[in-house]
Amino acid sequence: MDMLWNGWGDPAKAAPLPDTVTGLLRDLLGVKPRGTAAPGLADLRPPAVTARPAALKALAEAVGGTEHVRTDPESRIRHTRGKSTPDLLRIRAGDIADIPQAVVLPAGHDEVLAVLRACAAHGLAVVPFGGGTSVVGGLAPHRGTFVALDLRRMNGLLDLDPVSRTAVLQPGLRAPEAERRLNAHGYTLGHFPQSFEWATIGGFAAARSSGQASAGYGRFDEMVLALTLATPEGTLDTGRAPRSAAGPDLRQLILGSEGAFGVITSVTVRVRPLPETRVYEGWRFGSFQEGTAALRRLAQDGPRPTVLRLSDETETLIGLAQPDAIGTGPEQGDAGCLAITGYEGTAEDTAHRRARAADVLTACGGTLIGTEPGERWAHGRYSAPYLRDALLDAGAFAETLETAAFWSRIPELYTAVRTALTDSLTRAGTPPLVMCHISHVYENGASLYFTVVSAQGEDPVAHWTPAKHAANEAVLAAGGTISHHHGVGTDHRDWYVREAGPLGVSALRAVKRRLDPDGLLNPGVLLPTD
Amino acid sequence: MDMLWNGWGDPAKAAPLPDTVTGLLRDLLGVKPRGTAAPGLADLRPPAVTARPAALKALAEAVGGTEHVRTDPESRIRHTRGKSTPDLLRIRAGDIADIPQAVVLPAGHDEVLAVLRACAAHGLAVVPFGGGTSVVGGLAPHRGTFVALDLRRMNGLLDLDPVSRTAVLQPGLRAPEAERRLNAHGYTLGHFPQSFEWATIGGFAAARSSGQASAGYGRFDEMVLALTLATPEGTLDTGRAPRSAAGPDLRQLILGSEGAFGVITSVTVRVRPLPETRVYEGWRFGSFQEGTAALRRLAQDGPRPTVLRLSDETETLIGLAQPDAIGTGPEQGDAGCLAITGYEGTAEDTAHRRARAADVLTACGGTLIGTEPGERWAHGRYSAPYLRDALLDAGAFAETLETAAFWSRIPELYTAVRTALTDSLTRAGTPPLVMCHISHVYENGASLYFTVVSAQGEDPVAHWTPAKHAANEAVLAAGGTISHHHGVGTDHRDWYVREAGPLGVSALRAVKRRLDPDGLLNPGVLLPTD
Repeated sequence: MDMLWNGWGDPAKAAPLPDTVTGLLRDLLGVKPRGTAAPGLADLRPPAVTARPAALKALAEAVGGTEHVRTDPESRIRHTRGKSTPDLLRIRAGDIADIPQAVVLPAGHDEVLAVLRACAAHGLAVVPFGGGTSVVGGLAPHRGTFVALDLRRMNGLLDLDPVSRTAVLQPGLRAPEAERRLNAHGYTLGHFPQSFEWATIGGFAAARSSGQASAGYGRFDEMVLALTLATPEGTLDTGRAPRSAAGPDLRQLILGSEGAFGVITSVTVRVRPLPETRVYEGWRFGSFQEGTAALRRLAQDGPRPTVLRLSDETETLIGLAQPDAIGTGPEQGDAGCLAITGYEGTAEDTAHRRARAADVLTACGGTLIGTEPGERWAHGRYSAPYLRDALLDAGAFAETLETAAFWSRIPELYTAVRTALTDSLTRAGTPPLVMCHISHVYENGASLYFTVVSAQGEDPVAHWTPAKHAANEAVLAAGGTISHHHGVGTDHRDWYVREAGPLGVSALRAVKRRLDPDGLLNPGVLLPTD
Repeated sequence: MDMLWNGWGDPAKAAPLPDTVTGLLRDLLGVKPRGTAAPGLADLRPPAVTARPAALKALAEAVGGTEHVRTDPESRIRHTRGKSTPDLLRIRAGDIADIPQAVVLPAGHDEVLAVLRACAAHGLAVVPFGGGTSVVGGLAPHRGTFVALDLRRMNGLLDLDPVSRTAVLQPGLRAPEAERRLNAHGYTLGHFPQSFEWATIGGFAAARSSGQASAGYGRFDEMVLALTLATPEGTLDTGRAPRSAAGPDLRQLILGSEGAFGVITSVTVRVRPLPETRVYEGWRFGSFQEGTAALRRLAQDGPRPTVLRLSDETETLIGLAQPDAIGTGPEQGDAGCLAITGYEGTAEDTAHRRARAADVLTACGGTLIGTEPGERWAHGRYSAPYLRDALLDAGAFAETLETAAFWSRIPELYTAVRTALTDSLTRAGTPPLVMCHISHVYENGASLYFTVVSAQGEDPVAHWTPAKHAANEAVLAAGGTISHHHGVGTDHRDWYVREAGPLGVSALRAVKRRLDPDGLLNPGVLLPTD
């Protein structure tokens, strides 16, 4: 099924906010209901397709028939931008300026190469499209005339090697289907980002995705063992061994290239046996600082849980205030900080790690609450984007952003981003609620994931932009990376350029010019156009 | 101290082969003592320095004085090529054709930049020089007029962050000194390749080194968190977090670039607490196949030892035949295959992993021999290159080569390389002894490390070349990578080009052209010259 065109996910799963939350938004943040009704899909009138018939004919020849080149309004609208809050606010306001000329659906690597040739011949840009879940403007090229290259027909599990524990997956395979097929053979990929229900294997690779169980299964870019890339200049195949000293790691040059170097047409990943046991539980820490120290201890000295997360005081309080919150938690006002630990694996391994981690967490000041907060987290792990839609419907603004740094910089980074967001939005007249959690830990550092909720302001996108820029500045100034797992897209590009530095950026542009000399691929995404 | 100019390591540690081994070489392989004495250092007459005085003056200005620009014969000879067997055979025969014009010793990043500017201005190529331990022709550029950029003065531990567990090291710091300094603070890098006693931090990074304890501590390229690169076009700084989704991983583009993209002037690495406990022990398996299955089981399902190695039947037999071999092993002819397992860490963690790994290894058909083979391995872990010198002295030929692949390809790769070496050298009239071990394991694959010993033939380098090429062909045909940890250099370059593919190579050449437009840096190393 297709994702909701102007929101997240399955429309059947949408739910309005309970009155208590609406009241809280009104009283705490001054959120006022929006008066105007959003336009429906049928109300939108996309600009006419300007690509010439010869171009559309060439595309149809490349993909085996006109039925795989869609120019109807609905198909085009459904491939307009991604799912950031500004993306949603724009499309809800009827703005479809970034609409593709056509949606092209290739069936395999050779058809992708043929599409790229056709686009080069007819001067069309190409935006590779997987699940359409980008939240960083990764689907909004800086060039008007483009086609969306939807990879949904390339959705196979091509090979499973139980000896090497590797699987070859096609890029348009959605994560739940990849799991179902691997599970049927007794394996799992173990990659469960919040976008899990909609995102694709190719998108995970292109954007260096990281899932909620990264402490146990690693990031997606750590799971990838081999890649095939279709470029306007031909095919690049890389990955003959788990690790190699034969030159720079070309896999790590393709991972994170966000469609700007080529179209990923095949991904060989590491798979693991399906876990026998899964258990998630909740711990309480007195402060974010105390909890952070405990997470660091586990990340550095072990044992490593499969899932390891920590909410700050605000996120913990808000979580407890939600209608389905546990009733057994501490009283509001002294909620402390909630950590979630999860263990997946064999029964023996899980029990061993769980028991030893409990000792460590207790020694670090943690109190075990029990499995209920863990189960609640697991139950709702993919539902936050639905909550965002409901908040937008209620007239609130809600957005997330994330970063990572080395452990010693984490306190400064936390304060800097929080302060930047709070100050900027307060100055603009809409004091926000800023929540944060750590959801990915490494021996040498961690991620910080911020959620911002406020009133919308008159022009919500324009209202948010200075706050987002202030957060980006704070990230760079405090030594963080501009993105830990959302990617660069167009939204982070100007800060990414500063993070990578002029020589780093120009090295990557040299690669792009070699693989994509006409600049067809995702122009302006990741790297600035000339 | 300087390494032996025409052999390995500390001349005081050199030891002739015992008569029993000499007899074995004679009887088994037909090795005959070489009649001619090798020339001494003072016998060699390097070609005159052709670099103009203005160039030498500019270099001296770049590095703060003429004392840091050495043009004396000994300094130049000591920076001629690396330590592959062909390198040693050539220099022992008095061939110093690849000699640098001068040895330049910068004291820091800015001086490296100044040296690169001076070299660009005066048309000199630059070969970055760390420990000089390359065994793949990484120090033999394909351009006559070059300087060796010896990084020994840049040998500091610049920073140690105990919270993030990171250290900032300069590139010329030798591994033992890096360990000593980190150990003084209670930390270890955990990187112990066979070149440990001589190699440098910058060399490890440039060549994607992997150490003998990689099962526990990871490869060097997995330890690196940030890098600074000095290039003719300026400075590239990368690494603000352990992991990031901000574009392709530029660290992994520099790691493995073998001096062809720039000079690594700073490396931020992950460090770990010094282990409380270290224990190494030996296990016997009935066959290489059985042992390989056991290693794979540990690599995939754990627990993961810190060191995990397995010798094939031939290497096991030869090891037992050595004079210091344990007397308690099984009788010759039924030696089976020796595996070494090592555990380093806290006492509790070590004991737990060791006990559980013992269960797994036993279930896989292994028999515990005890700690003696483990201690013997640990004692001799850096001594194989000395043995090679003694073999060369005795008139034998001895060389190593290595590769890696996914587990399902390992049996085929093992047979293919072994057969290629055996057939080629047998056809040439010198049937070899070919030994192999697995010394690096991953969830999805492993390395294979081959040692070849034979008679030398009339022109030993020319005699070996077809066998080496046959092995390279076998590696590629069987799905292996051309190098797991030695690197590409000039020796593997033509096969690396095939492994990376035309588009991969031209993407890397585009990077090189951007960072090193005049092609000063290690011309012909890693990538072909234009």
